[in-house]
Amino acid sequence: MTESVHIDLGDRSYDVVIGPDVLATPEVWAGLPKAAVAVIVTNTTVAPLYAERLHARLAPLYKTVQVLALPDGESYKDLATLETIFDHLLTQGCDRKTVLFALGGGVIGDMTGFAAACYMRGVPFVQVPTTLLSQVDSSVGGKTAVNHPRGKNMIGAFYQPQRVLCDLGTLRTLPPREIAAGLAEVIKYGPIADAAFFEWLETHIDALVALEPAALAHAVRRSCEIKAAVVGADERESGLRAILNFGHTFGHAIEAGLGFGVWLHGEAVGAGMVMAADLSERLGLMPVGFKARLSALLLRAGLPVVGPALGGVEDYLHHMRVDKKAEGGEIRFVLIEAMGRATVRSAPDAVVADTLRACCAPAA
Amino acid sequence: MTESVHIDLGDRSYDVVIGPDVLATPEVWAGLPKAAVAVIVTNTTVAPLYAERLHARLAPLYKTVQVLALPDGESYKDLATLETIFDHLLTQGCDRKTVLFALGGGVIGDMTGFAAACYMRGVPFVQVPTTLLSQVDSSVGGKTAVNHPRGKNMIGAFYQPQRVLCDLGTLRTLPPREIAAGLAEVIKYGPIADAAFFEWLETHIDALVALEPAALAHAVRRSCEIKAAVVGADERESGLRAILNFGHTFGHAIEAGLGFGVWLHGEAVGAGMVMAADLSERLGLMPVGFKARLSALLLRAGLPVVGPALGGVEDYLHHMRVDKKAEGGEIRFVLIEAMGRATVRSAPDAVVADTLRACCAPAA
Repeated sequence: MTESVHIDLGDRSYDVVIGPDVLATPEVWAGLPKAAVAVIVTNTTVAPLYAERLHARLAPLYKTVQVLALPDGESYKDLATLETIFDHLLTQGCDRKTVLFALGGGVIGDMTGFAAACYMRGVPFVQVPTTLLSQVDSSVGGKTAVNHPRGKNMIGAFYQPQRVLCDLGTLRTLPPREIAAGLAEVIKYGPIADAAFFEWLETHIDALVALEPAALAHAVRRSCEIKAAVVGADERESGLRAILNFGHTFGHAIEAGLGFGVWLHGEAVGAGMVMAADLSERLGLMPVGFKARLSALLLRAGLPVVGPALGGVEDYLHHMRVDKKAEGGEIRFVLIEAMGRATVRSAPDAVVADTLRACCAPAA
Repeated sequence: MTESVHIDLGDRSYDVVIGPDVLATPEVWAGLPKAAVAVIVTNTTVAPLYAERLHARLAPLYKTVQVLALPDGESYKDLATLETIFDHLLTQGCDRKTVLFALGGGVIGDMTGFAAACYMRGVPFVQVPTTLLSQVDSSVGGKTAVNHPRGKNMIGAFYQPQRVLCDLGTLRTLPPREIAAGLAEVIKYGPIADAAFFEWLETHIDALVALEPAALAHAVRRSCEIKAAVVGADERESGLRAILNFGHTFGHAIEAGLGFGVWLHGEAVGAGMVMAADLSERLGLMPVGFKARLSALLLRAGLPVVGPALGGVEDYLHHMRVDKKAEGGEIRFVLIEAMGRATVRSAPDAVVADTLRACCAPAA
């Protein structure tokens, strides 16, 4: 029942293992890096649900298995919480071989990965993503980071895990809002890379919302495959990899403008993709109709398709200019030029303003 | 008059440029990464001496050249100061292409390098080391880090600079104590890698102490060459590179035991090398006489050859066990098995205790 996607990055290659009950399958935990100590880094929401099961998997493999449960939420994805992790590792005798296990969603994965990248200049880590978003996106590709009051993911590293273990069963304890947020990143892969997958999603979106196992397994695997192909071609985001940020330039502005954590990342990306689709139409890259088709699918997934007002158009532009995807103050947008094919380019401020007015609630 | 050492690390290769007046030589500043903004990260001691000259070199190359002067001292090499750097970069509109210039000693180099490694997951940086220690050691090899209250360099990254520019003239404003500290790392390269260089040092140590330009240039170049060869063979310190830590296991215990910054790093390494030499003799790896010969050279350089008492032998052992070079609680020592050849191994606690008693001031 377990499937694997191989992420090919030379001597930093690893496998993403996907299955309905990975936490109960001892075989898939074999062959992890050896060490005296393993540390499960998780949060206070996930720990009571899955820490014991993960502990049971790791106990035969490591002399000591520790659990560090951090407070839950994007607002804790900061340097202060990172320091909490370092304090734990240093007071609990963790050395250069200690293996960190990130048990949780994207916040836990990003922070644990970044802590692993920096602790003693790098210790091995394993992703055990328990949200749909992290299974299809953040646990693949090696981007780790924490937020700064002035911007999301501003402080981080490219650092690859040893393995990613996706237990689809953990998705059953997710609130529906988080399932929808994860589906935003799944849907993203259609327009940027795979027209057939987009059509498959149009057929199976209800099954996915209902967490039907076979549909979930296919969606997670195909998402990881597409991301693996893109990341394999451009590990450090010098070019192609930027297409994974479809919807993210607008989405980050929503997150930063509202304050991180008010909208979920996937919700912001959902509304952001509608804006990027609108901009693609306005620039003549896509025929009229694309935005409507994408919006229809997002709505069926339970996602917002209209952005918040924020402080108006100028506020959006300000947040996008300070985003790290902006270079020399120029905002770069991921746009669609054919279903399944993305391009990265700048756009005239006036056209972007038209898109914002067309896709966001009016400012008070 | 300018010489170069090439550090061969594949697509992360770079040059170390060494000369008597590099800050006044425009040619050696050509070909650096292009960007709108350059930031000179320095400290309040070095800034009044050299920031203006470096600014003059960079002004023709970048639209904006900013200067960020941090407080001076090892005690500021921490996560809080790192956050100060991030705050500056984010409030001053620095993007993913912004180039950081580390102007100062090892503390500035380590912190700036680590900030560059993490800011937006990596921006280019250039080392402009102004101390002997940083010219011969910390600016080559890509080790960046900050300290944690529980240990030195515990949080960091392997991250290579774009270029290292060593102006030997800057050494003239260094206090004699810092020259001596730098010479400790120069002397280190003899026992671990080059018997002939050790003999050359025995002949030229007085010229080096007097900052005689030709002697300095040779010592800096040869040190960088040796370090480059070692780092090139083992960028991420999985094996060979550990020999560069000759004297450092004991030295780190001195620094941690006294509190960082009480002894200079090079001073601690000086006394630490005497201990490592003593241990090499005790284990039968080197004939008796090696420790005396090494001590004589260190003394001529103005370095301490006796360790502080700390809290006694157990205190030393405790600090060495928590050092990140210890794995699974076992302390690994860099020992000498022939002049110019090092080995890394553990040693019985009882023998290490004998070494500590023989090489340190008695505990009160």
